[in-house]
Amino acid sequence: MAQTTRNPSLAVIPGDGIGPEVVGEALKVLTATVGENAFDITHYELGAQHWLETGEVLSDDTLAELAGKDALVLGAVGAAPGSTTIPSGLLERGLLLKLRFAFDQDVNLRPSIRYPGVTSPLSQAVLDKGPIDFVVVREGTEGLYAGNGGTLRAGTPQEIATEVSVNTAFGVERVVRYAFELATRRRNRLTLVHKHNVLVNAGGLWRRITEQVAEQFPQVHHDYLHVDAATISLVTDPQRFDVVVTDNLFGDILTDEAAAITGGIGLAPSANINTARTFPSMFEPVHGSAPDIAGKGIADPSAAISSMALLLRHLGREADAERIERAVAADIAERGTAARSTSQIGEAIVTRLG
Amino acid sequence: MAQTTRNPSLAVIPGDGIGPEVVGEALKVLTATVGENAFDITHYELGAQHWLETGEVLSDDTLAELAGKDALVLGAVGAAPGSTTIPSGLLERGLLLKLRFAFDQDVNLRPSIRYPGVTSPLSQAVLDKGPIDFVVVREGTEGLYAGNGGTLRAGTPQEIATEVSVNTAFGVERVVRYAFELATRRRNRLTLVHKHNVLVNAGGLWRRITEQVAEQFPQVHHDYLHVDAATISLVTDPQRFDVVVTDNLFGDILTDEAAAITGGIGLAPSANINTARTFPSMFEPVHGSAPDIAGKGIADPSAAISSMALLLRHLGREADAERIERAVAADIAERGTAARSTSQIGEAIVTRLG
Ligand SMILES: CC(C)[C@H](C(=O)O)[C@@H](O)C(=O)O
Ligand SMILES: CC(C)[C@H](C(=O)O)[C@@H](O)C(=O)O
Repeated sequence: MAQTTRNPSLAVIPGDGIGPEVVGEALKVLTATVGENAFDITHYELGAQHWLETGEVLSDDTLAELAGKDALVLGAVGAAPGSTTIPSGLLERGLLLKLRFAFDQDVNLRPSIRYPGVTSPLSQAVLDKGPIDFVVVREGTEGLYAGNGGTLRAGTPQEIATEVSVNTAFGVERVVRYAFELATRRRNRLTLVHKHNVLVNAGGLWRRITEQVAEQFPQVHHDYLHVDAATISLVTDPQRFDVVVTDNLFGDILTDEAAAITGGIGLAPSANINTARTFPSMFEPVHGSAPDIAGKGIADPSAAISSMALLLRHLGREADAERIERAVAADIAERGTAARSTSQIGEAIVTRLG
Repeated sequence: MAQTTRNPSLAVIPGDGIGPEVVGEALKVLTATVGENAFDITHYELGAQHWLETGEVLSDDTLAELAGKDALVLGAVGAAPGSTTIPSGLLERGLLLKLRFAFDQDVNLRPSIRYPGVTSPLSQAVLDKGPIDFVVVREGTEGLYAGNGGTLRAGTPQEIATEVSVNTAFGVERVVRYAFELATRRRNRLTLVHKHNVLVNAGGLWRRITEQVAEQFPQVHHDYLHVDAATISLVTDPQRFDVVVTDNLFGDILTDEAAAITGGIGLAPSANINTARTFPSMFEPVHGSAPDIAGKGIADPSAAISSMALLLRHLGREADAERIERAVAADIAERGTAARSTSQIGEAIVTRLG
């Protein structure tokens, strides 16, 4: 087989809620950037609907197929919080987290940029301190997301439920190293966020490894914040951040707050990177399936579109990545206040690709 | 012994950093409110300095003495983050958390009020939506704070560190019930914050119990937010919250963000309540020891002073509690922008007690 000349293969999982809507626009922009036939694209209907129809979240066969792809694009999965038709966590743990873990996507990369002109919930005094532009390197394969834990005497007054955060030197080291390397290509500042005064075991490990790796990056200034203090800095002094490195759950929490202060979760892209390149990486907006606005054609596809830039960068197409990023930035800067539909935003960005 | 006529006894632990400074003003206001001899006050020198001098964090004898008090007042404990003279977590886990756990302080009550005129990092558009006035009921004796977990092969490339979140029906039920009762005395709205789509065991327990208790409070409207989404609402729509109930770690994180948006951690009081009244409750500002500004006489004592209102309310002196709250609110409303010292703020509040 002429493997050397084949196109990169892309698995697309539109998912639930607004997932298919935003992914549609993301693929439109991707195609406009690299051409119709640059990628071999296969769609996979997975998510709430698929589960309701088939009783299957993700089969071993599908997982094996996905493993052979060069990259994955995901819209959003998950039932509405509080839904009772779909068991809590079924899709999140059975599909989204399953992919992150099965494909060893250790670095969950989440850039936060405030584009000029975007409405922010922060005061002018805070915004006037300077541009907001940082990246959270969230660990993606350990911590409280490991799925360890259980329940005893469920449903009785004697119930005990546990969740275990699992942290390994191996797992922490690779993301901390990635974060330091990233900092050298940015403003040479790194902040470790944890809660080592309470979580002494996990926090101790993160601190020790950060100090060790730091020795190899003398040009990077590094500091430390407890996670509670970090939520304060995000609203009072977000400019202090360049690269933030943190565990899976703290990263989940901080990146939603980060998305909010920079103008909303509709703009925040993410990459789930398998740094060893033994499995496909996965690109998805930070936002969820947003069942409340699904099907109305009003979801903002900017986050999904920006995720395509992260995809292209990962595949070595830096110039194409930057074309998308410039088009998105220009669209956001000039979008004004008039409401636009999902596809209007997608088309406006295509037009700006130049 | 004439137990029936004795004064309530108060143990005061000024602690580290700015702790002694803010506690000094808090006691000044307390005395001005209830009179010189209303309480039997004993000071305990515990914290970083005490440990450096004696090698002891909290002796069994001191713990037993404290157990006999009617209430505890705490300033702040803890070394500077990143300090190497004091082992990470030693004072937090050995003193502050030790007291919360030994005295079974199940409800960690943290009100968040935005006083008119206080500078907030939020935009005018968000502030204009209405007053911000909510209470976080943080569970205080379980979760990731239980101190379960450990380390294998510490310091080696094969290190594994775990942290276990322990949640019991008993522990969750009592704080959820407290939160619903509190909601009936407020605006009848309760929000459970958790992450049940990932932490299915603990999240499942919290949800089930909340649904059960809700049946006994039909007048209270209750909803649910994932913790990541809650950090967004806190900056985009804080007015949506009335009573928030959540676990120990999520409560820690959300109350710092809440303090930030309402004008700073210098204003946020807290009560660690032993709801069974089998042990003393403890009253402390949310802020920490702030080593960077310690000894300068510039720390804002408002949070420590407001904590005295929570103390008096807990001891059944509602009118006195309200006097302090009114004096603090008036001082904050009219403080303007001129810098004042810790003691100037304390004295201004004393003057306003009327
Ligand atoms: C949907 C959920 C499982 C997921 C997470 O917690 O990681 C989401 O919040 C995210 O941040 O990608
Ligand atoms: C000092 C620390 C142990 C403490 C906590 O995490 O509970 C503090 O942050 C708080 O919120 O009271």
